[in-house]
Amino acid sequence: MPEAQRGAGPGAGLTYRDAGVDREAASRAKRGIADLVRSTARPGVLSDPGSFGGLFRVPAGYRRPVLVASADGVGTKLKVAMRAGRHDTVGHDLVNHCVNDILVEGARPLFFLDYIGMGRLEAGVVEQLVAGVAAGCRANGCALLGGETAEMPDFYAPGEYDLAGFIVGIVEEDGRPGAHRVEAGDQLLGLASSGFHTNGYSLLRRLVFDRLGLGPDDAFPGTEATVADILLRIHRSYLDAVAPLLDAGLVHALAHITGGGIPENLARVLPPGLEAHVDTSAWEPPAEFRAVAELGAVGREEMFRTFNMGVGMILVVPPAGVDEVTRRVRAAGVDAWPLGEVRPGTGGVVLH
Amino acid sequence: MPEAQRGAGPGAGLTYRDAGVDREAASRAKRGIADLVRSTARPGVLSDPGSFGGLFRVPAGYRRPVLVASADGVGTKLKVAMRAGRHDTVGHDLVNHCVNDILVEGARPLFFLDYIGMGRLEAGVVEQLVAGVAAGCRANGCALLGGETAEMPDFYAPGEYDLAGFIVGIVEEDGRPGAHRVEAGDQLLGLASSGFHTNGYSLLRRLVFDRLGLGPDDAFPGTEATVADILLRIHRSYLDAVAPLLDAGLVHALAHITGGGIPENLARVLPPGLEAHVDTSAWEPPAEFRAVAELGAVGREEMFRTFNMGVGMILVVPPAGVDEVTRRVRAAGVDAWPLGEVRPGTGGVVLH
Repeated sequence: MPEAQRGAGPGAGLTYRDAGVDREAASRAKRGIADLVRSTARPGVLSDPGSFGGLFRVPAGYRRPVLVASADGVGTKLKVAMRAGRHDTVGHDLVNHCVNDILVEGARPLFFLDYIGMGRLEAGVVEQLVAGVAAGCRANGCALLGGETAEMPDFYAPGEYDLAGFIVGIVEEDGRPGAHRVEAGDQLLGLASSGFHTNGYSLLRRLVFDRLGLGPDDAFPGTEATVADILLRIHRSYLDAVAPLLDAGLVHALAHITGGGIPENLARVLPPGLEAHVDTSAWEPPAEFRAVAELGAVGREEMFRTFNMGVGMILVVPPAGVDEVTRRVRAAGVDAWPLGEVRPGTGGVVLH
Repeated sequence: MPEAQRGAGPGAGLTYRDAGVDREAASRAKRGIADLVRSTARPGVLSDPGSFGGLFRVPAGYRRPVLVASADGVGTKLKVAMRAGRHDTVGHDLVNHCVNDILVEGARPLFFLDYIGMGRLEAGVVEQLVAGVAAGCRANGCALLGGETAEMPDFYAPGEYDLAGFIVGIVEEDGRPGAHRVEAGDQLLGLASSGFHTNGYSLLRRLVFDRLGLGPDDAFPGTEATVADILLRIHRSYLDAVAPLLDAGLVHALAHITGGGIPENLARVLPPGLEAHVDTSAWEPPAEFRAVAELGAVGREEMFRTFNMGVGMILVVPPAGVDEVTRRVRAAGVDAWPLGEVRPGTGGVVLH
């Protein structure tokens, strides 16, 4: 009822703008976005921004090409972006997250599409969001092939939004990594995360903003960085470090450590009859994880199921390849270390 | 601050559930969804529900296969679903909308992924939403290859959600329909919509719920149906009616009439130097559109830019093919009628 009265007296004609949708602001935002989209152009893209559907030529040279697709959202990390007024990183998070999800199937990214839902279209915010997506696409050699920005009056509070994305990549059908290739004796190699990535943010916000009463510019406990810097650090993409290892056939399987942590995600690449033993004394979680455990009085098991604990990706590698894989991952700028092995058994993922 | 106090006294350990995320409810919902996903299986699908990425084999038999992708949301039609407590139709809307968007590029759907954002995960609602998506996928021969359900405390009001989707289809690179094939003298053929489809819902809600004070079970003015039935009628898919015509090379271009109506969407398939003349006396918009114009005092131009006015798809057809195309579309159960033609000129889309 109050909404019905805004902008139009009784009996006045209704327009789409009265109803909360500003089509011209939408058009302005679209023009800015088109340039960002073009910045991600790569071989294969056939369409212009703004066509009904994005067109992408299937790459030649694959014997049995398989498409690998994934959908994801940023989750409540978005609230940190809103609180800090910094909207140009979460899109990069989203692309990297999606790239990692299809990388564990052995796929290289081809293209990405985004979805932004927003109450009142704020052109500057939309452009920052898409700028982050485009930066992520460029860094991963992935075309931003399309997207949708939906103005949804009454769905999102002023200044708030949701951001989701979809990726498509490609892999040769034979020789994909995965549970079917994992064997007893395989070694687990942890690859360093860049921080919390995009998981555990409901707990983090509750602790940092509500319980500790910190703001975005305060120091994050136990670190030299601000809350905003720690909490908005971009989810790392493992594409460049890992893709050459896949080409060389050095990796049996990969687990992207997201919601559910090491226990749930490593379990997804264990075949029947094998279990994974993780030696949690093999590394010390970074300071921000230790601070959360201490200040939030969060138990060890809850920490490991909620956060990546400093390990963003786990590679399952035959013993003979461990040294070479470790060396090559480090040479690509990502720290890597042994954190356990695969043994016969039915115990799933066992944390020691 | 109030949120921080809920469920945990001062000094108590924080768990993910305290912070508003119920991981077990999420797991339960996922199991129900997996069965729905399997119901959409079709040749090409290689992955099980729940893998990191969905796998789909590129179909054989194309000389130069091009992927066509589109992202979309349902928009504020969702609010009608929430108000009516009927969550199993909007997913079907979304799939059909996406199918139509890539159909205008000549593409047949291969697979679909959905994104659901929700404050507190309500397993029953999620299952209804995914059931609608799965029904749409089955009806269009499209695999539901994956999706994401994000529990986002503090983003969505209780009982509310957002729903977006992403489709990938395939088309042979040569012979695609589009503006490049449109010629002077081509005839415009209107294909009947099934109602408002998914556009104009902010205005519709403002008028029907707020101004007229109607509820979901009241009669929709000018019709025999209820408000919920009229406003939740599923966006029609034109795949079955139109795909055989594309195979037969009978259609130069197609415009899916969505936001912006006939003027904005038909303009997207006009090449430079040609304009489209639409005779709006060629058909009478269905009763629900006439009721909205009258009761909302919405002007003719605003009506045509906000709603499809009974025309969900326009085919641009060479004159010699009009009779055959009309006959075949009608035989497929969709009404079709001539509504204008393409002429030399730079006036864009002209409504008469």
